[in-house]
Amino acid sequence: MSGEIAIWVDGLQAAALPLPDRGLEFGDGLFETLLLHNGDPLYLDLHLARLRRGCAALGFADSEPAVLEQSRRACADAVTRGWRWCALRVTLTRGGGPRGYAPPADAKIRIVISATNLHDVPSRMAEPAALGLASIRWPTQPALAGIKHLNRLEQVLAAREYRASGTDEAVMLDQRGDVVSVVAGNLFLVRDGQLFTPPLDACGIAGTRRELVIRRWSQALGLAVKEQAIAPAELETAQEIFYCNSLFGPRPVASFGQRNWNSHPVCTALYAAYKGELA
Amino acid sequence: MSGEIAIWVDGLQAAALPLPDRGLEFGDGLFETLLLHNGDPLYLDLHLARLRRGCAALGFADSEPAVLEQSRRACADAVTRGWRWCALRVTLTRGGGPRGYAPPADAKIRIVISATNLHDVPSRMAEPAALGLASIRWPTQPALAGIKHLNRLEQVLAAREYRASGTDEAVMLDQRGDVVSVVAGNLFLVRDGQLFTPPLDACGIAGTRRELVIRRWSQALGLAVKEQAIAPAELETAQEIFYCNSLFGPRPVASFGQRNWNSHPVCTALYAAYKGELA
Repeated sequence: MSGEIAIWVDGLQAAALPLPDRGLEFGDGLFETLLLHNGDPLYLDLHLARLRRGCAALGFADSEPAVLEQSRRACADAVTRGWRWCALRVTLTRGGGPRGYAPPADAKIRIVISATNLHDVPSRMAEPAALGLASIRWPTQPALAGIKHLNRLEQVLAAREYRASGTDEAVMLDQRGDVVSVVAGNLFLVRDGQLFTPPLDACGIAGTRRELVIRRWSQALGLAVKEQAIAPAELETAQEIFYCNSLFGPRPVASFGQRNWNSHPVCTALYAAYKGELA
Repeated sequence: MSGEIAIWVDGLQAAALPLPDRGLEFGDGLFETLLLHNGDPLYLDLHLARLRRGCAALGFADSEPAVLEQSRRACADAVTRGWRWCALRVTLTRGGGPRGYAPPADAKIRIVISATNLHDVPSRMAEPAALGLASIRWPTQPALAGIKHLNRLEQVLAAREYRASGTDEAVMLDQRGDVVSVVAGNLFLVRDGQLFTPPLDACGIAGTRRELVIRRWSQALGLAVKEQAIAPAELETAQEIFYCNSLFGPRPVASFGQRNWNSHPVCTALYAAYKGELA
């Protein structure tokens, strides 16, 4: 592992985070996971836009110039190491400060960047995924819905569960029992030649690839996308389901509940649209 | 500040946390804040019981012997430093591991302990607090309610808001609009010679001092305690309100909304019961 990951704290290569740090203490922070291809961070503008929304929600000082400068150095380093495909995680925390929940008014944002070699994994469409159903549900929190903050326990517990049960991913529901997403990605279903995906107004993360499916790749295919509540049973009767995240792009689903899917024409076409943009 | 805090990571004095760490990455961890008096951690059994409940909920390996051993050393160190009253924060994280939400099955729990000198602050009942009303609400999450995990963004944002508005603390509501707690403590109201406090089945932290108020200190005063939903308006019409946490014990409330309270007989008596146990 140690040869396959490189870490920077506030612009310097580091093996440790200065303490105290409010990111550790309270999850007082944000992150983005970008896919690097030959040192190029894909869809950087979408990641920065979500990060800005997160900074506004949490009251973080603007640190975009430092994020860009430090990311650039990490990207250049990945190229030097010969890492063709790479996951770049950019974490912002509200740094140190006195004991207690209240952040210092003049908090200095701390930037932690880690680059992990992905070898050739993202170079082709991922194998169709077997999906479980997570027993833990997303928390209801409209004030923080959509942004990618550091409070991620539900996804950790859902991932722990699907790993133990041998599936590749798991569908996560909201507190009402409607579908929200998988653990690490946004979910879509295909029905009557149309795409459907859940709204993210009370929980969930507004994925960059979700935005691309909705605004760009589906349009290239002439498919309409509708955001609406989806019951778990609707997934099983769909013509096709798939999810997407920054590392996989669109990934087809092989099975959920009692249902198996053997062909994935819509996901395959969306993946081709995505791959076309990378070329 | 630096002379008033001491930090240990896995039993060694340290200024930094090894990276990667899942506590930072996802809030994959738990914590306890204990009050030390002359090196003695008060109500240690209650803190350990809550930590055990948290470890069970998150699937953490038992690390109580190491927590006890490392806490003991931090307590002894605080005595050496002449810190009579001290806040001891014990943080457990699921340590390092490969990229992604799924924790390693054999994760080694990491223990971070920090001791902060409180000088004489906890030696008498705190001044009556002016309470605001937080605009952010607790998230609805029955699966994690009561335990003290590291996902604490709502409390951070509420604390940031009350600091900016100049109050001492703030009432936090649930998603329905009922009262849950203050940012750092559990809330009680006095009405018709009885105590009322909200249930914590969907959100909030089950405080050690809340438990002591309910099971012990109220009984010493001959007061019944009832857990039931409380609307914010009910606070304003109460004879008295107070909150409690591990550092203050019971703390009276001076004002909330349109209401001021000039006498705090129940809180004062509960504080005396608490202080009697320390003697």
